[in-house]
Amino acid sequence: MDAYRAIVTKRDTRSFTDQAVADDELRRVLQAGRMAGSAKNLQPCRFVVIDEPETKQKLAECGDFSAWIPTAPVCIAVVIPEDGRDFDAGRAAQNLMVAAHAEGLASCPVTMHHKECALDVLGIPEGHRVAIVVALGHPGEDPSSRGPAAARLPFDDYVRRNRW
Amino acid sequence: MDAYRAIVTKRDTRSFTDQAVADDELRRVLQAGRMAGSAKNLQPCRFVVIDEPETKQKLAECGDFSAWIPTAPVCIAVVIPEDGRDFDAGRAAQNLMVAAHAEGLASCPVTMHHKECALDVLGIPEGHRVAIVVALGHPGEDPSSRGPAAARLPFDDYVRRNRW
Repeated sequence: MDAYRAIVTKRDTRSFTDQAVADDELRRVLQAGRMAGSAKNLQPCRFVVIDEPETKQKLAECGDFSAWIPTAPVCIAVVIPEDGRDFDAGRAAQNLMVAAHAEGLASCPVTMHHKECALDVLGIPEGHRVAIVVALGHPGEDPSSRGPAAARLPFDDYVRRNRW
Repeated sequence: MDAYRAIVTKRDTRSFTDQAVADDELRRVLQAGRMAGSAKNLQPCRFVVIDEPETKQKLAECGDFSAWIPTAPVCIAVVIPEDGRDFDAGRAAQNLMVAAHAEGLASCPVTMHHKECALDVLGIPEGHRVAIVVALGHPGEDPSSRGPAAARLPFDDYVRRNRW
């Protein structure tokens, strides 16, 4: 898929089929995340790939709006140091998700509001935190997961010139 | 450019020629930023496009490592609410930069350490902050700006399965 098209057509959606994500697809997605730039090239992000049903079930309890996690064939937890930059996590996660979209996969970020829960479920040592979990899989048919996220404010509301 | 190729070959570089960025190129870059997803679709980011030399010169004084800003033909300040998520700013900035790369443009994020300075230079009202400035332009020839940023830890250092 063309890069510009992939970027501007990517929507955060969370309706998935049961079809597994192929290893080569997943590897490209992860490679995309790995290659994201970071401040001072510190490379603060690590990715925990979660495909065990029982682990997904436990992880679903670590967020306020994450009960749907088990419906995703694969989740990728983006882990950073406790004092790491969420900006860099956002860069890596966007790479993961745009690359997934280019592979024909749907994806959606989900926040782990209960930090200790996520660290415990994934066996992550102290000094780290889960910046985000990216759920992905082949897109399902539920159109309700597509509409609202497509809405954007007008271009001219987004952009100013030289001064606010 | 192919999406996966654009994502994995994007490097943060800051060597630019004097060539101006064409309006249609810049518009696609900004559109890419606009279409980035955000938590609850809050769309927290706004983009201030800076191409006036005197404004770039003033902005160069707002960061600890930003003296090179005037060498970039265009800068895009990504502005979010004071309590906005840097994660979402990272998603938008990555879209800006990967789209720029797909257009053949080099780009590099630069931090505004002196927050009030950046708000003042750009006339941004209280209650906001500059999450990042993305500098962009046609790539220059300085190879020293390319090497280190290309280095990445091995794939297997980045990725774990189900448990840390």
